[in-house]
Amino acid sequence: MRARDLLAAFPTVTADTAVVEAARLLAGQDLPGLIVVDERGLPVSILPGTQVLRLAVPGYCLDDPALARVVDEAHADAFLSSLADRTVRQALPPDGSSGRSSGRRELPVTDPDATVLELAALMARTHSPLVAVVEQGRLLGAVTLQALLDRVLAA
Amino acid sequence: MRARDLLAAFPTVTADTAVVEAARLLAGQDLPGLIVVDERGLPVSILPGTQVLRLAVPGYCLDDPALARVVDEAHADAFLSSLADRTVRQALPPDGSSGRSSGRRELPVTDPDATVLELAALMARTHSPLVAVVEQGRLLGAVTLQALLDRVLAA
Repeated sequence: MRARDLLAAFPTVTADTAVVEAARLLAGQDLPGLIVVDERGLPVSILPGTQVLRLAVPGYCLDDPALARVVDEAHADAFLSSLADRTVRQALPPDGSSGRSSGRRELPVTDPDATVLELAALMARTHSPLVAVVEQGRLLGAVTLQALLDRVLAA
Repeated sequence: MRARDLLAAFPTVTADTAVVEAARLLAGQDLPGLIVVDERGLPVSILPGTQVLRLAVPGYCLDDPALARVVDEAHADAFLSSLADRTVRQALPPDGSSGRSSGRRELPVTDPDATVLELAALMARTHSPLVAVVEQGRLLGAVTLQALLDRVLAA
């Protein structure tokens, strides 16, 4: 069993996608994360769901749990809609550091020949519940943790 | 909207649950992670799916992607079943450090009064796609990232 047997088409976003749109995509299609692609359609980042959520949460709430607690319920309920102008770009490394240069965190991206063990190790190492599969400069799709476990356990 | 409005019953495992069993639970019920409880039924850890997977992957494959690559397809396919004696305990901090002592990582656990903003901040901070909800020494259930987004976006 190889990545090519497990992958499925997977929606992508770009750096210019609004955070609210990204959240809608995640929720609407029940995805574990999102693939961010560049202008060539190649993955520049994989955002687990929790990192998409991070984009939607005001910084002071991330730093201090007590501050999130003092925001009243009505304002808390509306936290996502107060972000109309925020985009996925904020979650990406600063411009100029794209590519797999040294010092960058490993991206959960592999080729169609990767075995299930390689996929599992990559997900575990990068804490990513999805891995993008690329061949000859083209994004073929993604393997999710659920798809991987389903197939490995059924085997 | 509060955690009490968003929570749902959530399966739990213990330190003695076999890794294969944990993986089956995760896959079978399409869960984003697992709640590990102690003998009182209280959460001692929340394991995102990627961390359950980490338990199932041999250490040398985690350290070095190249080593995972040299394992042939047949052996790679069987990686999960070679772990019959491994339990969830391996993913937990060493005995004696349970509880929320200083220096421990924050657990994604909250009370039923937490607002959606608090839940979102907690998920983002702890990189956990689920939060356990505890009241008066009892685990009430969990709020998943999907449930949170569904309700926030529908509001």
